[in-house]
Amino acid sequence: MIYVTRKSHFNAAHRLHNPDKSDEWNRKTFGKCNNPNWHGHNYNLEVTVVGEADPETGYVIDLGVLNGIIEKKILDKCDHKNLNVEVPFLEGIIPTAENLVKAFFQELEDNINNESYGSSRLYSVKLFETERNVAEYCPNPRIS
Amino acid sequence: MIYVTRKSHFNAAHRLHNPDKSDEWNRKTFGKCNNPNWHGHNYNLEVTVVGEADPETGYVIDLGVLNGIIEKKILDKCDHKNLNVEVPFLEGIIPTAENLVKAFFQELEDNINNESYGSSRLYSVKLFETERNVAEYCPNPRIS
Amino acid sequence: MIYVTRKSHFNAAHRLHNPDKSDEWNRKTFGKCNNPNWHGHNYNLEVTVVGEADPETGYVIDLGVLNGIIEKKILDKCDHKNLNVEVPFLEGIIPTAENLVKAFFQELEDNINNESYGSSRLYSVKLFETERNVAEYCPNPRIS
Amino acid sequence: MIYVTRKSHFNAAHRLHNPDKSDEWNRKTFGKCNNPNWHGHNYNLEVTVVGEADPETGYVIDLGVLNGIIEKKILDKCDHKNLNVEVPFLEGIIPTAENLVKAFFQELEDNINNESYGSSRLYSVKLFETERNVAEYCPNPRIS
Amino acid sequence: MIYVTRKSHFNAAHRLHNPDKSDEWNRKTFGKCNNPNWHGHNYNLEVTVVGEADPETGYVIDLGVLNGIIEKKILDKCDHKNLNVEVPFLEGIIPTAENLVKAFFQELEDNINNESYGSSRLYSVKLFETERNVAEYCPNPRIS
Amino acid sequence: MIYVTRKSHFNAAHRLHNPDKSDEWNRKTFGKCNNPNWHGHNYNLEVTVVGEADPETGYVIDLGVLNGIIEKKILDKCDHKNLNVEVPFLEGIIPTAENLVKAFFQELEDNINNESYGSSRLYSVKLFETERNVAEYCPNPRIS
Repeated sequence: MIYVTRKSHFNAAHRLHNPDKSDEWNRKTFGKCNNPNWHGHNYNLEVTVVGEADPETGYVIDLGVLNGIIEKKILDKCDHKNLNVEVPFLEGIIPTAENLVKAFFQELEDNINNESYGSSRLYSVKLFETERNVAEYCPNPRIS
Repeated sequence: MIYVTRKSHFNAAHRLHNPDKSDEWNRKTFGKCNNPNWHGHNYNLEVTVVGEADPETGYVIDLGVLNGIIEKKILDKCDHKNLNVEVPFLEGIIPTAENLVKAFFQELEDNINNESYGSSRLYSVKLFETERNVAEYCPNPRIS
Repeated sequence: MIYVTRKSHFNAAHRLHNPDKSDEWNRKTFGKCNNPNWHGHNYNLEVTVVGEADPETGYVIDLGVLNGIIEKKILDKCDHKNLNVEVPFLEGIIPTAENLVKAFFQELEDNINNESYGSSRLYSVKLFETERNVAEYCPNPRIS
Repeated sequence: MIYVTRKSHFNAAHRLHNPDKSDEWNRKTFGKCNNPNWHGHNYNLEVTVVGEADPETGYVIDLGVLNGIIEKKILDKCDHKNLNVEVPFLEGIIPTAENLVKAFFQELEDNINNESYGSSRLYSVKLFETERNVAEYCPNPRIS
Repeated sequence: MIYVTRKSHFNAAHRLHNPDKSDEWNRKTFGKCNNPNWHGHNYNLEVTVVGEADPETGYVIDLGVLNGIIEKKILDKCDHKNLNVEVPFLEGIIPTAENLVKAFFQELEDNINNESYGSSRLYSVKLFETERNVAEYCPNPRIS
Repeated sequence: MIYVTRKSHFNAAHRLHNPDKSDEWNRKTFGKCNNPNWHGHNYNLEVTVVGEADPETGYVIDLGVLNGIIEKKILDKCDHKNLNVEVPFLEGIIPTAENLVKAFFQELEDNINNESYGSSRLYSVKLFETERNVAEYCPNPRIS
């Protein structure tokens, strides 16, 4: 099995805040990430597809096609946006890196699995919130 | 002459908007950077001091001291903040990378020149807004 | 189990083209990567070996030995070469990143497994065609 | 399952030497890494925790808490130190990258598993000795 | 004065060869870079504009405009191309990094100087042929 | 004028200590960098040569020749060494990044100026002690 990864990036504002909890709980739990005036990041996104290389093209998935799906489903909706208030598929989600990778995976999965060759499928979504803080979601077993 | 550079980073929200102009002018001029709901960046900052190495220490400036000045004057005020509304020394400034490097230079200059050895002085402030967009301010001539 | 990785790089020209298909199919499928005058890349290569640390040396594999194998089997044959016409072990293969990692793995496997300590063995070959496009081949199960 | 990674770094001196072997064996086996006057590295460390995101916080582990554990258990003991003679938990260990990741894992495991949410636990420790030489230790199976 | 830099990249094939010299001279002078079957690179390009920040926009130059000029004048002509045979403005030039930065500067200068604010102008063009080999052309004096 | 840069790296141990001063002064001035058991770094070195491109080769300097000089004069003497006790040309020098770049420049200057084309000459030596701490020495004026 071959794992193919495409890297992208977007810039966004966010704030960590659980509206079901008190302001004090939020300040204590999220610290400066709870700032009501927002802060933001240059997010780096890595999307990995696993499968066999198609014999006619040598591709697991056409990276131009993969890039197009990532742009339409993620970048166009998140780039230069406020992740708490402007992205419909993130509504009701605290935008930690953990919750973002899970939501991105669900947003991408059907489109990628339909567009890749043969039985290739989405394997993981990884997000660098900063150079030092990273989250990865990969719900299916690693085949090899 | 020796140029010594210290790199730092901070995360912040901002928006490009000139309040003296119409909303239409702002949207046309700044595009998605004008989003009223903000967006944000992982800013990487490089501060360069120029001078001779002090014969007793071999330092142009003690990088621990330089780091302390950068933290007190820039990072504590900008990290996880909204650059348009929460940073007193940026009041009235459109927070483009160009305007930020100039404001940071002015904020740092006296402190650094007082704390460096001999005639060493602040030479430049460089800011990476993204990996691809960079601004640098260096108002004094390069001696060598 | 411990995974040890050695990074290398080489520069090469290539072209994506399936000689069993029409020129039109190739242009449509591979786009500008099908350019008959070639294009090229700075390839970054990561070779990972898995095993236990040998008690006498603390090594899974001597990285100098691993580096020597990578140089002899891959770099000497591919660096500053045309991957379509000058590399015997790539003959008849469309040089996509997917096909390259599989061919590199097969080229390296026996040598590395013979030179590593105890039951250590080649685990994966990863190739960065650009900073944004990556392929990895790892045919054996991850033990831990 | 979600994998969360925190990156850190430290600078240290070390030397590869097996005291149970002759000087000749050590010189032949470890080459210039055996230099009795030491050499050193800027080590980059990646610690990965795996688990479900806590529904109240959206965190697998609070990265501030994780960072605090890494600082107390690893960085405070290793940064600007000699890994052969100054770090109690490395006593008797040849400080190859392989042996370091295993020792760091054991040093971190209990603290991290106690401080993470729910059933989250330490998954792997990865160490970049240089930009080109890397070791990773992950003794438990990858769940997904 | 403020220096603003935009980073771009492209992939291309090339070969170092002086047609006025013998094959033997070329092989001896350029070594493996003289390979008649070509090799290639992922080129990283940095274009720097110097000037004052415009008071209405806070920009030395609109980076979207700058990016558009770089795409039209350089990337569209060089990306996935053979620099020796397919780029009209490089005709008759040995495509060393030194010659490329000078040719790129001349290709960009008028467009950028016309599109930037006030007296801002193109300052330098820098090209990373590999991560380790870099050339920069800056024919006008550094003002500060 | 064109500036050509070659990047290299080496690993070394060092300690900041002024033998003319008391132990207390050294501890207070240099902090943990004064550790008598040493610490170390992965040093990244950038050597820049300035000049015109030679019309026959398109080179300011042959980077293979430049690399050979850097290896002979710096890397062979410093890599995997203790900078305080094993490098003759650093004897009596406190190995701060500032003092190292000046010593490296003097060590390289004659060789490079003799081997480059025409009037090309060594312009600067830059050293990354860590990713965040950098020193550069450039004693001659920037011509453009």
